Amino acid sequence: MTQAYQALEAQFAELALMGSISSVLGWDAATCMPDGAAELRGQQLAFLAGQSHAKISDPALADHLAAAEAEAAGLDDWQRANLREMRRHWTHRTCLPARLVTELTQVTTESEHAWRSFRKENDFKGFLPHLRRIIDLTREMAGIKAETLGLAPYDALMDSYSLGLRMADVDRWFDELADFLPGAIDEAIEKQPPLPPAPGHASKEKQEALARHLMTALGFDFAHGRLDTSTHPFCGGFPGDVRITTRYDEASFMESLLGVVHETGHALYESQLPEAWRMQPVGEALGMAVHESQSLFVEMQLCRSAAFFRFALPLLKRELGMADQVTAQQLYTRAIHVKRSLIRVGADEMTYPLHIILRYELEKALLSGALDPADLPGAWNDGMVRLVGIRPDSDANGCLQDIHWPGGSFGYFPSYTIGAVIAAQLREAMERTLGPLDALVEKGEFAPITGWLKDHIHGQASRLSMAELLQQATGAPLTTDAFRRHLQGRYLNR
Amino acid sequence: MTQAYQALEAQFAELALMGSISSVLGWDAATCMPDGAAELRGQQLAFLAGQSHAKISDPALADHLAAAEAEAAGLDDWQRANLREMRRHWTHRTCLPARLVTELTQVTTESEHAWRSFRKENDFKGFLPHLRRIIDLTREMAGIKAETLGLAPYDALMDSYSLGLRMADVDRWFDELADFLPGAIDEAIEKQPPLPPAPGHASKEKQEALARHLMTALGFDFAHGRLDTSTHPFCGGFPGDVRITTRYDEASFMESLLGVVHETGHALYESQLPEAWRMQPVGEALGMAVHESQSLFVEMQLCRSAAFFRFALPLLKRELGMADQVTAQQLYTRAIHVKRSLIRVGADEMTYPLHIILRYELEKALLSGALDPADLPGAWNDGMVRLVGIRPDSDANGCLQDIHWPGGSFGYFPSYTIGAVIAAQLREAMERTLGPLDALVEKGEFAPITGWLKDHIHGQASRLSMAELLQQATGAPLTTDAFRRHLQGRYLNR
Repeated sequence: MTQAYQALEAQFAELALMGSISSVLGWDAATCMPDGAAELRGQQLAFLAGQSHAKISDPALADHLAAAEAEAAGLDDWQRANLREMRRHWTHRTCLPARLVTELTQVTTESEHAWRSFRKENDFKGFLPHLRRIIDLTREMAGIKAETLGLAPYDALMDSYSLGLRMADVDRWFDELADFLPGAIDEAIEKQPPLPPAPGHASKEKQEALARHLMTALGFDFAHGRLDTSTHPFCGGFPGDVRITTRYDEASFMESLLGVVHETGHALYESQLPEAWRMQPVGEALGMAVHESQSLFVEMQLCRSAAFFRFALPLLKRELGMADQVTAQQLYTRAIHVKRSLIRVGADEMTYPLHIILRYELEKALLSGALDPADLPGAWNDGMVRLVGIRPDSDANGCLQDIHWPGGSFGYFPSYTIGAVIAAQLREAMERTLGPLDALVEKGEFAPITGWLKDHIHGQASRLSMAELLQQATGAPLTTDAFRRHLQGRYLNR
Repeated sequence: MTQAYQALEAQFAELALMGSISSVLGWDAATCMPDGAAELRGQQLAFLAGQSHAKISDPALADHLAAAEAEAAGLDDWQRANLREMRRHWTHRTCLPARLVTELTQVTTESEHAWRSFRKENDFKGFLPHLRRIIDLTREMAGIKAETLGLAPYDALMDSYSLGLRMADVDRWFDELADFLPGAIDEAIEKQPPLPPAPGHASKEKQEALARHLMTALGFDFAHGRLDTSTHPFCGGFPGDVRITTRYDEASFMESLLGVVHETGHALYESQLPEAWRMQPVGEALGMAVHESQSLFVEMQLCRSAAFFRFALPLLKRELGMADQVTAQQLYTRAIHVKRSLIRVGADEMTYPLHIILRYELEKALLSGALDPADLPGAWNDGMVRLVGIRPDSDANGCLQDIHWPGGSFGYFPSYTIGAVIAAQLREAMERTLGPLDALVEKGEFAPITGWLKDHIHGQASRLSMAELLQQATGAPLTTDAFRRHLQGRYLNR
């Protein structure tokens, strides 16, 4: 190990510690903080962001990076990967002028705030000036990152969420899905049985007790994590203190149950990252696409299955007092019911990718200038008809529905569907070793499954690129084949 | 306003912000944090402490202090007081060598940890080496602060908790109380009615709902604060986000009820500090003695009264489902029952000051060298016989009972009883304007009372010394007269 590299490890450990503090403050803001403390919390987070930015912009850090790279031959495999990730973090965080960072923060904070009102009032015109300003600033940011990284502007944006994700691949995967899904959805809707009745009322307390049972069964460790309530479910905290949230609808426990297992998938990833690298860039989760693959693996591959509901049925009856006549098959049928709908977050597994493909097409067009922001509602609604097959009744249920663009997150949406695609390919690879997962899930034997994920995904952290990781874990490059086989098996061969 | 002073305000605002972040992390550690995250939390807090120490030790800050003091004529009243408090913070925090600060932190952390086991095992001899090391380091610290501040060593320690508190006054006040109390306690015990039966079982949920009602009645603002559960009740957070905690005993609601109103007293002080000075030293609460006066004012002067239980009785019956035959007089009789006992935190209002006087005598003797730590148990037990009138059955129930010395807090104990003395004098002053408080309390009209406290105490923050504040608020220097009249009225003239 070289002196320069050692100095970098110490500097990045401080950056990680600052990040972990911000993370506690963010969790608190979403779960505990009284409303009146929002301004103080904003000041606290801005202070930490400023300290962190000063630290990573320190010229001594840049000197250490160059020196360590010149002596990289003396580093081992993990250390070299760590150095690569340090450089990547440094590039993404220091290439933008301070003026632009400040402006982006102000404009996205304001426009998120404005968006909440304009969405409620279904007022796209009112929101348009905000959207224009965000797109202008995002284009400026993407241009600088593109030049620095030697990438196309949209690729530079995706790269900041998922290292190495490129339009060339995403276009191909999404074209395959856009070809396959509309017809498959017609067939699925035609073949599926009628929706069984909702399985009855359950109090928040009972749902929470059930959630804790399921989380424990899946391997969540409450000595290093928590479950709480928030308006928008998320997985927060830091490895060693991973905190997930959910919300409860007493009229229907399925949403919370499936939300909890989804967030548990994220939490297991964070919890099983290698402890020795916890405070270093290489020790972080690989990116949003792989992160989403872990939540969707647990939710879609493990838990939205007939096997899972057979496993969970006695627990549901005991913990929720669910009526005796409800069957596992009824619950499963409800959990995989396909329905064309307007809202992404409520979409089923088959139509969800089409919502994503629409957003991917539109945000590329907005950023390239091919689509003027004023024309977004028309393009959105036409796209919905073409891809999902229904036309939004309002912009509130159309192009104003998501927080991502008001918050300045362009290049993020593809991660959701690529995560689903990865999860299916991981499942096929896993089954070559462990045999049919349904046999394990039905018995509640999740340990071999999470063990496989620890060995092949979680424990690798950011050592490899996404392409290398998936090649190594599954023996092949990522394709949409396994995902399409999965949908075929679950929805069409029933 | 001078440039140097302006720079100082910006620097101290950053220090306050760092303190507010540490405070959220501390609250989280006591209420939410999973056990397994303790080490990470320790790193986070140590990082913030290090950043804060680096900031206040910055030579530029010392230069600004000197420059601003030279130009203090250009400052207004609050600004001059702020500058004085900046200098005081700076002196207390920078006068010690870094080696000593680190050693004190390590030794007190270790010895707090060791104390938990040795107390459980009633093993004073096992704890003795820890105590010796703490006392040695505390004497070194007190010596340096004494020289820097031009004070006696023990005064220098008290000064760090309560600005301006001096042995010359404390000795006089405590002598008066030590003369008055033992005989008064004999008389109180002789005169008091037998202890009425406990008023029955109440679930945690019901007690919590009651606590929220009472807090709201007293003026606690849940838009800027919270109530939670923790092992040791405390008031934490930061002005604008004040968080108190309690613990619940389902067999007896009185402890939690009176604990909650006590912490609400602390919370009202923090909440009513002047908003414009929130991030500056002069905007902080004046010190631990005055802080304790606010919690004891609400607990002892307002709530342990017959009037309060007449006000609260319908609420207790409605919220807790308390039996109809329980009377306000029975609850009041229980709340002011006097009993010689071994443990400070469970002591009643009359015997509590004697527990404090014992500790004050002993810690002065330990620090001066007049008492060898090995002789502490004997001195403690003899002192208990002399002051409280009973001999401890063990060191666990004697000199090992409190966390203060294991944690390195010498000079803190007097604040508790001086707080009680202040609260009584404030009450007499307040009644000269508002009339008998019992008449307001019985009707649940707390707003004029908390308004008086805001005008005379909370809103003054640290602008004045404690002596000036009390002179201005009550028209006289602090004496024990009002406190003795209060005890006379409540316990002897019944």
